[in-house]
Amino acid sequence: MSFHSMWAELLPMGRSSASGGYRRYAWTGADADCRTWFQEQAEARGLAYETDRNGNQWAWLGDPAAGNAVVTGSHLDSVPDGGAFDGPLGVVSAFAALDELRGRGARFTRPLGIVNFGDEEGARFGLACVGSRLTAGALTVEQAHRLTDGDGVTLPRAMEDAGYDPDTLGADPERLARIGAFVELHVEQGRALDLSGDRIGIASAIWPHGRWRFDFRGEANHAGTTRLADRRDPMLPYAETVLAARREAELAGAVATFGKVGVEPNGVNAIPSLVRGWLDSRAADQESLDAVVSGVERAAREHAAAHGADLDVVRESFTPVVEFDHALRDELARILGGATELKVPVLGTGAGHDAGILSGRIPTAMLFVRNPTGVSHSPAESAAEDDCVAGVIALADVLEGLACT
Amino acid sequence: MSFHSMWAELLPMGRSSASGGYRRYAWTGADADCRTWFQEQAEARGLAYETDRNGNQWAWLGDPAAGNAVVTGSHLDSVPDGGAFDGPLGVVSAFAALDELRGRGARFTRPLGIVNFGDEEGARFGLACVGSRLTAGALTVEQAHRLTDGDGVTLPRAMEDAGYDPDTLGADPERLARIGAFVELHVEQGRALDLSGDRIGIASAIWPHGRWRFDFRGEANHAGTTRLADRRDPMLPYAETVLAARREAELAGAVATFGKVGVEPNGVNAIPSLVRGWLDSRAADQESLDAVVSGVERAAREHAAAHGADLDVVRESFTPVVEFDHALRDELARILGGATELKVPVLGTGAGHDAGILSGRIPTAMLFVRNPTGVSHSPAESAAEDDCVAGVIALADVLEGLACT
Repeated sequence: MSFHSMWAELLPMGRSSASGGYRRYAWTGADADCRTWFQEQAEARGLAYETDRNGNQWAWLGDPAAGNAVVTGSHLDSVPDGGAFDGPLGVVSAFAALDELRGRGARFTRPLGIVNFGDEEGARFGLACVGSRLTAGALTVEQAHRLTDGDGVTLPRAMEDAGYDPDTLGADPERLARIGAFVELHVEQGRALDLSGDRIGIASAIWPHGRWRFDFRGEANHAGTTRLADRRDPMLPYAETVLAARREAELAGAVATFGKVGVEPNGVNAIPSLVRGWLDSRAADQESLDAVVSGVERAAREHAAAHGADLDVVRESFTPVVEFDHALRDELARILGGATELKVPVLGTGAGHDAGILSGRIPTAMLFVRNPTGVSHSPAESAAEDDCVAGVIALADVLEGLACT
Repeated sequence: MSFHSMWAELLPMGRSSASGGYRRYAWTGADADCRTWFQEQAEARGLAYETDRNGNQWAWLGDPAAGNAVVTGSHLDSVPDGGAFDGPLGVVSAFAALDELRGRGARFTRPLGIVNFGDEEGARFGLACVGSRLTAGALTVEQAHRLTDGDGVTLPRAMEDAGYDPDTLGADPERLARIGAFVELHVEQGRALDLSGDRIGIASAIWPHGRWRFDFRGEANHAGTTRLADRRDPMLPYAETVLAARREAELAGAVATFGKVGVEPNGVNAIPSLVRGWLDSRAADQESLDAVVSGVERAAREHAAAHGADLDVVRESFTPVVEFDHALRDELARILGGATELKVPVLGTGAGHDAGILSGRIPTAMLFVRNPTGVSHSPAESAAEDDCVAGVIALADVLEGLACT
């Protein structure tokens, strides 16, 4: 089955006709459709199919028990109204790269695995990379049991409802010990390749990133009758803080975003008692990120005080910089530099990935495919078919270089 | 039953133990408790009790068919987590003023009515003053039938569930024709009396006011990977517009508030595709209000364009200035100036009231009772008991001056 056919099969699954975006949330019907598709692809190629103790799907060529396996793949779930490429491009390209290698008559000297990690986006339970975190021991069973979706359904219950046994959840060091290299192909979620004019890039690192919750508390009051001088309106320091975040990010060459807001009581004719905004910020290095966050917090405190509002800042999550394995990265650059006419830049990324989670346990690398607009986490996310095909060839070259004679 | 006892009876009805505020929404159980209380107060005083075709409650001393009636009262419903005084103070004071007049041995020459208007705050169906609007013909039956609460329950259905016949809804000119004057006592929702050192004030006018919805549309994208230069983040022009509204209101001596916000997709790691903010603005005169709104809209357009966002501005509601009846207002000032030692300032207000709705049909006036903090639409709303008692005496004086020999 060609790249094009596989892509066409996946395309309607979990797509919202209203938004045109994808709603493939972990352990829902749309997710089950994608998982069935994965299993069918594995079986159609004569690969040994298995679901691991954390719900991740694997397809094996050769016996993984032999060790030093080369694994590729990504995820099939999506953010709310996400695009078609984020995740699925890596899984489809993995199967297509295997087909390409078989077409070349390649002979494998190492086991080859193709993986679909469960719940990478965290859209349903609020935590990203649940499947890889559990496997790597970066999320405990107790923590996983406490994950709950917006309807109050726990992760174990959701897995059970989807026909999986949640009692098996837990770290899986034996599985990781058999893997010698993991290479994840992903659509770029930015415009670095578009700006440099390259189809394919290699990841150097995942930027340090985190989420901070800013709670501005003022005093609810009548919007029509309360004099400006008597107000303690938390919307005003919130607005100042949004603008400060943009300025600080510009200064540091970083990114900073207020994308989520909650207001109480959220009435048109009521001065809010509470405005809660979440800052997402990421930078190439820890020092720059610290500069952004401390700058934003300083501005928030000044403006809160000026408007008589109280401020609490809570760091809700933080991930330090992830440097991908240098030896593997250099080997990819060597393989791609020799085998293709492509110039292959090495670039950092602000996005988290399963590859980032696993990089603390096994040698891990990432390939990026050009995104002409940089748009991601949106129905408008795109990649040219030519670039996707170039991605398949590059991935096949890398797998051949790593796993074949 | 004394003012104090009536107040103590009402106090627990519809009060949230979580917030300490009131949730007396139209046609709910809490509203029914308040209505039962009203009927009991009427019957305990030997007044003729009736519910009119729009669900407003009336208690009559004398025969209203005689015409030229003097009516006082207010409402018993609340905004979400509102205070105890906004509305109930006017109803309790009405009964207490009648008791005071009976104690004085006053002899009535005009029918006296006490009224509880239904759904003044509009907390449930999104439109304020539904009971008085219907009565005045300012809201048609067809419009009323389309009102729907957050759970999809229509107003007629809600009335029916509460035991009222919604088929009777409609304008009630015969009822209004029998009323010669309506005087509503209300806690002040600002600090004018506190600042001038007066217990009681008389309303001159209700400021013109309106609601405008600002829809900033940008492009959803990944918060971690989208370069600042490639963003079309609608949160940024929204923040600029919040600050512009404050500046314009200061310049014009008006008020302007963004108290309600909706964000899509409202994810921590997603640049929003849509930020929707509602502007509430009010000013002493039309010219000042126009200046505020056009200034805010100009700033919003400039900043939206600068950030690549689209902007739609929709005026959702607008009420022109309401000048209360000058003759009635002057008569109140004369009565209070003669009968009491109080200095009684005349002041405008930014809040809407049933009295404002009715002022287009019948002579209408308002009395305000001092609010020591100006706080309203909040559990912290308050009035000193001394000031409330002064309000009862002032209202009794006014009713005596208007309706007694």
